[in-house]
Amino acid sequence: MFNDEYFMRMAFQEAQLAFEKDEVPIGCVIVSNDRIIAKSHNLTETLNDVTAHAEMQAITSGANYLGGKYLQNCTMYVTLEPCVMCAGALSWSQITKVVIGARDEQRGFINKGLSLHPKTEVVTGIMENECSTIVKDFFRNKR
Amino acid sequence: MFNDEYFMRMAFQEAQLAFEKDEVPIGCVIVSNDRIIAKSHNLTETLNDVTAHAEMQAITSGANYLGGKYLQNCTMYVTLEPCVMCAGALSWSQITKVVIGARDEQRGFINKGLSLHPKTEVVTGIMENECSTIVKDFFRNKR
Repeated sequence: MFNDEYFMRMAFQEAQLAFEKDEVPIGCVIVSNDRIIAKSHNLTETLNDVTAHAEMQAITSGANYLGGKYLQNCTMYVTLEPCVMCAGALSWSQITKVVIGARDEQRGFINKGLSLHPKTEVVTGIMENECSTIVKDFFRNKR
Repeated sequence: MFNDEYFMRMAFQEAQLAFEKDEVPIGCVIVSNDRIIAKSHNLTETLNDVTAHAEMQAITSGANYLGGKYLQNCTMYVTLEPCVMCAGALSWSQITKVVIGARDEQRGFINKGLSLHPKTEVVTGIMENECSTIVKDFFRNKR
């Protein structure tokens, strides 16, 4: 039951919450021992803050929950490939695993030649279509 | 009077506050029209949060002050070259100018091949010795 699709669906529900708030629809959850310890969605417009990406909020929230700044034995599920800022934060967090829904060829960290912490496993392509489509639908509505 | 050295000294005073709290001594200020609108220092240990770099806090704080998420007509003075996370955040902020004290060859964004927003001017080497020495002194005390 608790497979990658299960937790990515939780992250996707966060992206849907962002969509409803007219925010770029990206969501994520952080999981430790099959429990969600943090969940968040993009709030850059609501908070008027470019740093309020889903991942940044979840990293802070997860570390608060754990009582330490490193996200050891944790997995982040995020609907869209993290940007440079969020990849840098994930790198500092030494998170164990990052599972990505859709790739972001233009703004994602992978095509910038960046990598996360050497300890961090990265998996891509979980619920890729849904995670990609919700972002495309959002920007189509904006035009 | 209000030259780069003047504002870098204000950022350096923030780094000194971090040093006194046993935090890696990095400080920054954001200036708009010759006024400091945000100042901060690294608080990653105090807050148990890898995202609590001086620059991240100042970007959020500066945007709050301005009432918008873009740091237009703003200059950040930061004692150490920003890391990948902070460079990514600065890039999203579209800040006008970033003035750097000392380079960080290992963890700074420049040697990672990253650049900030195309609009952003970058200046390095202001109070370089003092900004570099305080970090070296901090880590020497740790050994």
